Amino acid sequence: MILSKHDRIVFAGDSVTDMGSVNPVGEGFMEELGRSYVHVVDALLSAVYPDLYIQVTNSGVSGNNSRDLLNRFDRDVLNLNPDWISICIGINDVWRQFDCPSIPHRHVSLEEYERNMESMISRAVEKAKGVFVMTPYYMEPNPADTMRARMEEYCDVCRRLAKKYGATLIDLQKIFADYCTVRHSTYVAWDRVHPNQTGATLIALAFLKEIGFEIGF
Amino acid sequence: MILSKHDRIVFAGDSVTDMGSVNPVGEGFMEELGRSYVHVVDALLSAVYPDLYIQVTNSGVSGNNSRDLLNRFDRDVLNLNPDWISICIGINDVWRQFDCPSIPHRHVSLEEYERNMESMISRAVEKAKGVFVMTPYYMEPNPADTMRARMEEYCDVCRRLAKKYGATLIDLQKIFADYCTVRHSTYVAWDRVHPNQTGATLIALAFLKEIGFEIGF
Amino acid sequence: MILSKHDRIVFAGDSVTDMGSVNPVGEGFMEELGRSYVHVVDALLSAVYPDLYIQVTNSGVSGNNSRDLLNRFDRDVLNLNPDWISICIGINDVWRQFDCPSIPHRHVSLEEYERNMESMISRAVEKAKGVFVMTPYYMEPNPADTMRARMEEYCDVCRRLAKKYGATLIDLQKIFADYCTVRHSTYVAWDRVHPNQTGATLIALAFLKEIGFEIGF
Amino acid sequence: MILSKHDRIVFAGDSVTDMGSVNPVGEGFMEELGRSYVHVVDALLSAVYPDLYIQVTNSGVSGNNSRDLLNRFDRDVLNLNPDWISICIGINDVWRQFDCPSIPHRHVSLEEYERNMESMISRAVEKAKGVFVMTPYYMEPNPADTMRARMEEYCDVCRRLAKKYGATLIDLQKIFADYCTVRHSTYVAWDRVHPNQTGATLIALAFLKEIGFEIGF
Amino acid sequence: MILSKHDRIVFAGDSVTDMGSVNPVGEGFMEELGRSYVHVVDALLSAVYPDLYIQVTNSGVSGNNSRDLLNRFDRDVLNLNPDWISICIGINDVWRQFDCPSIPHRHVSLEEYERNMESMISRAVEKAKGVFVMTPYYMEPNPADTMRARMEEYCDVCRRLAKKYGATLIDLQKIFADYCTVRHSTYVAWDRVHPNQTGATLIALAFLKEIGFEIGF
Amino acid sequence: MILSKHDRIVFAGDSVTDMGSVNPVGEGFMEELGRSYVHVVDALLSAVYPDLYIQVTNSGVSGNNSRDLLNRFDRDVLNLNPDWISICIGINDVWRQFDCPSIPHRHVSLEEYERNMESMISRAVEKAKGVFVMTPYYMEPNPADTMRARMEEYCDVCRRLAKKYGATLIDLQKIFADYCTVRHSTYVAWDRVHPNQTGATLIALAFLKEIGFEIGF
Amino acid sequence: MILSKHDRIVFAGDSVTDMGSVNPVGEGFMEELGRSYVHVVDALLSAVYPDLYIQVTNSGVSGNNSRDLLNRFDRDVLNLNPDWISICIGINDVWRQFDCPSIPHRHVSLEEYERNMESMISRAVEKAKGVFVMTPYYMEPNPADTMRARMEEYCDVCRRLAKKYGATLIDLQKIFADYCTVRHSTYVAWDRVHPNQTGATLIALAFLKEIGFEIGF
Amino acid sequence: MILSKHDRIVFAGDSVTDMGSVNPVGEGFMEELGRSYVHVVDALLSAVYPDLYIQVTNSGVSGNNSRDLLNRFDRDVLNLNPDWISICIGINDVWRQFDCPSIPHRHVSLEEYERNMESMISRAVEKAKGVFVMTPYYMEPNPADTMRARMEEYCDVCRRLAKKYGATLIDLQKIFADYCTVRHSTYVAWDRVHPNQTGATLIALAFLKEIGFEIGF
Repeated sequence: MILSKHDRIVFAGDSVTDMGSVNPVGEGFMEELGRSYVHVVDALLSAVYPDLYIQVTNSGVSGNNSRDLLNRFDRDVLNLNPDWISICIGINDVWRQFDCPSIPHRHVSLEEYERNMESMISRAVEKAKGVFVMTPYYMEPNPADTMRARMEEYCDVCRRLAKKYGATLIDLQKIFADYCTVRHSTYVAWDRVHPNQTGATLIALAFLKEIGFEIGF
Repeated sequence: MILSKHDRIVFAGDSVTDMGSVNPVGEGFMEELGRSYVHVVDALLSAVYPDLYIQVTNSGVSGNNSRDLLNRFDRDVLNLNPDWISICIGINDVWRQFDCPSIPHRHVSLEEYERNMESMISRAVEKAKGVFVMTPYYMEPNPADTMRARMEEYCDVCRRLAKKYGATLIDLQKIFADYCTVRHSTYVAWDRVHPNQTGATLIALAFLKEIGFEIGF
Repeated sequence: MILSKHDRIVFAGDSVTDMGSVNPVGEGFMEELGRSYVHVVDALLSAVYPDLYIQVTNSGVSGNNSRDLLNRFDRDVLNLNPDWISICIGINDVWRQFDCPSIPHRHVSLEEYERNMESMISRAVEKAKGVFVMTPYYMEPNPADTMRARMEEYCDVCRRLAKKYGATLIDLQKIFADYCTVRHSTYVAWDRVHPNQTGATLIALAFLKEIGFEIGF
Repeated sequence: MILSKHDRIVFAGDSVTDMGSVNPVGEGFMEELGRSYVHVVDALLSAVYPDLYIQVTNSGVSGNNSRDLLNRFDRDVLNLNPDWISICIGINDVWRQFDCPSIPHRHVSLEEYERNMESMISRAVEKAKGVFVMTPYYMEPNPADTMRARMEEYCDVCRRLAKKYGATLIDLQKIFADYCTVRHSTYVAWDRVHPNQTGATLIALAFLKEIGFEIGF
Repeated sequence: MILSKHDRIVFAGDSVTDMGSVNPVGEGFMEELGRSYVHVVDALLSAVYPDLYIQVTNSGVSGNNSRDLLNRFDRDVLNLNPDWISICIGINDVWRQFDCPSIPHRHVSLEEYERNMESMISRAVEKAKGVFVMTPYYMEPNPADTMRARMEEYCDVCRRLAKKYGATLIDLQKIFADYCTVRHSTYVAWDRVHPNQTGATLIALAFLKEIGFEIGF
Repeated sequence: MILSKHDRIVFAGDSVTDMGSVNPVGEGFMEELGRSYVHVVDALLSAVYPDLYIQVTNSGVSGNNSRDLLNRFDRDVLNLNPDWISICIGINDVWRQFDCPSIPHRHVSLEEYERNMESMISRAVEKAKGVFVMTPYYMEPNPADTMRARMEEYCDVCRRLAKKYGATLIDLQKIFADYCTVRHSTYVAWDRVHPNQTGATLIALAFLKEIGFEIGF
Repeated sequence: MILSKHDRIVFAGDSVTDMGSVNPVGEGFMEELGRSYVHVVDALLSAVYPDLYIQVTNSGVSGNNSRDLLNRFDRDVLNLNPDWISICIGINDVWRQFDCPSIPHRHVSLEEYERNMESMISRAVEKAKGVFVMTPYYMEPNPADTMRARMEEYCDVCRRLAKKYGATLIDLQKIFADYCTVRHSTYVAWDRVHPNQTGATLIALAFLKEIGFEIGF
Repeated sequence: MILSKHDRIVFAGDSVTDMGSVNPVGEGFMEELGRSYVHVVDALLSAVYPDLYIQVTNSGVSGNNSRDLLNRFDRDVLNLNPDWISICIGINDVWRQFDCPSIPHRHVSLEEYERNMESMISRAVEKAKGVFVMTPYYMEPNPADTMRARMEEYCDVCRRLAKKYGATLIDLQKIFADYCTVRHSTYVAWDRVHPNQTGATLIALAFLKEIGFEIGF
């Protein structure tokens, strides 16, 4: 377990992270922390490592793309003095290109996405003991799907930047792709984006694996 | 235009047909007729053929599978003395196999689906001047997708039975597959099942084409 | 079809245009675009011309008269860089004279209406590739009716100004008058102003006709 | 004033009478009596003739046509032992022919209307000291309007039957037609059927005139 | 009838005047005008004198005492350019002395009441063709009741000032006292302050009498 | 203190007793017991005599008159095996005579009231260790008031029957009359019937006095 | 892992099990399965063992004690043909003795509890491959607390009966007592009964440990 | 009774004091004063000492700790010119240390608590005739409980400062500890903090005892 007693971890993101948490930043009781993978992480950490007192902060805001998150990154992430930072952003950058194809001002280009991500990741690694970069994803098992293919380009940005800055990559796109070889994507998320509790648990377990979580039996 | 003055057409189906209509049977004002393709059909018929006075009846009930519809087919379709009958059922027969894979009593097998459909179609053609069989569909462009593949088997039942009983086939699966070669499926329906207004319009136009609708300009 | 790929069209108006759209300006998903003729236009364009990616913007605000629309015309119409502009305003200018006859500050005189319209139309034709002027209307088939007669004067303003500035006239007053020779006005709108879906479809079709829409079957 | 101390008067009708009253029969506090002309009558009688203690009963049910009212006439009118009975029904018999022209089972023909009315009026005059027949109406000043013309036929039934059975005729159609020579119908009712408070007051005054009400100053 | 065509009358007051009207000033449709005596006046004027087009404005705000009304008198009454002004204030000045006897800052003394009233009445008579002073009241028939006795002192202020400034006095305290010799006060108002529709009608008739209203039959 | 350990006391009555309790019978948590004097009694007994474990049952139903209570007296009072019974009914028997003077079927005559009360009291004293008869009341200090005078006649029934059957009389009419010599009735209840918390406390204290409650400091 | 492919497990219990599940029996989507430990079990099983397709059924009903559960045990548990049964009941049997000490009919004695439990467990082991008996609990670390002490007696019944019938004991009382040596009970449940998500996770992990769940990293 | 006629007493505190009162300061009717011990005090004072007209002010705000109360102490307490001040704060200072152990910025240390309290108490005794210091409490009978033990340290601050500044100590921690030797804490408060009506009554009686309240029978 790489987390130390009283460490604070801030999870930044969009609706996948937010899911009803207090905005812009929520922590503590469930109504404040939301119902996403963040509270699954919090519940498992508190249940199995009660003596560590990890402070879990949800800084997800529904609808955010990388531009929105960049605009509030100082206030809602860096200024909170986190020991660990997790960033999961980019789904809306891509999705709007496909569900609102006629509204260009809702799209974020690959180039801008890379600039936004580099700005956030580079500063995050300066500030925190460790940074987790969760790739955006589309729970579409077919790699030939146009939105999946586009999303892979954005995922590649995450993969490159995580490597460049020494952040830990959590490849959610790969995790969901693997899972969908067993169960159909409709089981985990009706819209292939917003995970149900099983999907949230998959994200949480992926994170917990990276921090050396052990279930203890 | 094959419809005659004062003809009544009953659309039977599931949530794709229902979308807020009065249950089990709704007609008349919009709050009664629902917001699905049925009201698009009704609005276009009323706007372009006001002198025909077509009676449009929505007999869709959300969540229905072919077993549910069969159970209420006499009361909600045949006994209404329809001149024309449209049946669009089967999505939930298949969907539950993939989003509730562990709950077998919510699944309807291909064999039962065929029995249910044959029972309804055979009696409908006896009763009405014409019957429309809309295939179920999954707005998944990848034919290798397991749910899409399963859905095709159910579509094939519709295709066979429509032919056998002289009903008009409306191949929604094909229509949406074609559409998704241009726009991504997420544009028409976030969950690849419940169409937005564009999707409802696609279904409505497919039906209107079959009845010889002309827009008049 | 006179619209080109990625063109943007802004529909400005009152509650007939608004019908639940996001205020002051809505576009995209149905909850944002409202349930008026604007979304019928959007759905038919997206269904039949998916490859054009027309950006449809609803700039209708319930209760607006021409004075209100003029006050927000820069912000909510011209500054959006529209390729096409549609203006449908004036019903409330007249209606309040008849349903609030004792409250003069809610009335807009014919003279002011003409000034307001000319200010908007003249600037719109400068800005956009094309401008559509939809007349206000009262779905009253009797031309001797005092409110219908007054409305005709306001319609005449539209008719004159459309001609003067080379805008496309869409004579909604005439369209509804014609329709009411077949079906009674109470069928299309309980209050002879707010159209139901059939009425919204009539407006949408009138617009689509002008832009060269073809249904394709 | 023809009413005597402790007389009971029952007003039977549709939504014009009901307007939020307790169903099927309401009386007493305002939430029970509704907000229609019935409570205007009740308030004016109580204010000006407090010593008469007239029992005012609202037996209006929204949506009722003459068939519906006939079905409940024993239970909701005759069995209440009224001293006076007022009947105002027929609007929905006609209206549905025009706003739901394609749904024949919602229409009530002139012949059936006459049978229904005669059954009710003939028994009412047996039971009560006096019967008031209020004509249905359409607040349409143009006699050539098709719905107004049809409504006149139903009004004529009322006029004939009131005469035949010695009931007091209250010709609401004429009252509203006269009123609309001064103010436009949209002032009294947006849909030309459901009166606002001014319209309700017009009905109430017409009734009060017939019973010899005097305002006292 | 002393009102002329297109005259405007503003009714200022507290919850007795307000009763759900738009705040601070409401007029027009019923949801805007409230359900107090003001809308009874408006409905009777519109029904009987439709050709006068009297503009009726409700400037009542629930909970107001004379201090509150004075603070907003310019904005909500005088600046509206009324032809006629009616003032009905003072109940809360007294009531709070009896239902909140321990909270002195909610009380308004007789002296302050007189100052407040004189300031409003003196300026109103300057501004308008005529001013109506409605006394506050307590629907308590027993003159020995302490709150009734106190209210009489406030009524006396109204009586004196109306005389001094040539305003028309409408002695609501006397009107309700007289009415309660026939019906018990609990019939008109459960709390002896907020009138039901009969009570509102009594106030409206008292006003209409003063302006020479004739019912016409 | 005359109550013994584990005694059960059932309070029967109307809205004064009910005030939000579970119907027909509520006990236990506050949402079940209501917010009337019953919960004040329960809270003071539990606070000061926690070792007695008195079971307090609220059998009040809003709107009940003595006829209604009699109809449910077996089910909701006697069959609960109470050790003590309190009855407080009659306000609505009288009140409706004054606030609904024109609706005779809502009135309960003095004669019927006496029959109803005698039937309940006589059986209650058979069943329980002790019976409390709380008089109905009207918080009207003026004995000449007609409703107060009528209420006194009903109170007299209680006074006579309590004496005849050896029940404990709690003269609420007298208690409130005394209280109103100091504070005005509007302080305790705006409608002179439904007590606020101070009024509920007055009733509770009157009951506690009779059972020998001592506050202990 | 002792569960086999397609096994069904039914969790019977009270509000700790229910937490918003469909009553009496819920399964499938989260709104149906509730938010208790049952959905944590379901999410972890689906995430880590997607190929097993375990059918998880929530048969918890808020407020149930052992008597209530026994009454519905056939319908809601045994008749569902479960492969595995988990029973967690008894908290309300004890709790009501302490929070409703004056209401004996809400208590369930130790003797009745044993009878109820034996009836359910003995039949469950006949029906299913395996039975899990979760003890009731009170998250009170002090063994001298009277409610904790009483709960231990009920826990002992579970411990004895689990042994006697060869069921798997899950000693929730011990688990929570151990946890509270690290974190205070107020962290897991404000009322020491209804667990938050951490508490639900503790129960879920205790169950998963017994079935041989392995997290896989 | 140490209170004099027209004295004002301000109760400052957190949710135990607030319970639905108007924020930041409520007084008068029950919806304004809240449902905590403050309204029990108010009701008993008004019922038994109606001639004293004590002004009772609720200055409790849910969620406040001593830091929050200090920040608003001038505005919400001292500036109201109270004759008597009661302070009951500190529960949240401690509770958050146990139910949010990982969120340090929600904790208030013992040292800060003492500073905050001394600042408030020292100024209160300057301003008012008398000051009541109610200790915070945890309704946990076991003194070895860690949160109870911590709370005792905060209680000791109150005990010391009350003595130092001559304020009246009301030792709620002791009162509830004593009560819980008879009834279990779950009876008075499900979460051992927010009292039900019995608990509120216990606090009210403790206060009333200190001011010399006598029940009078």
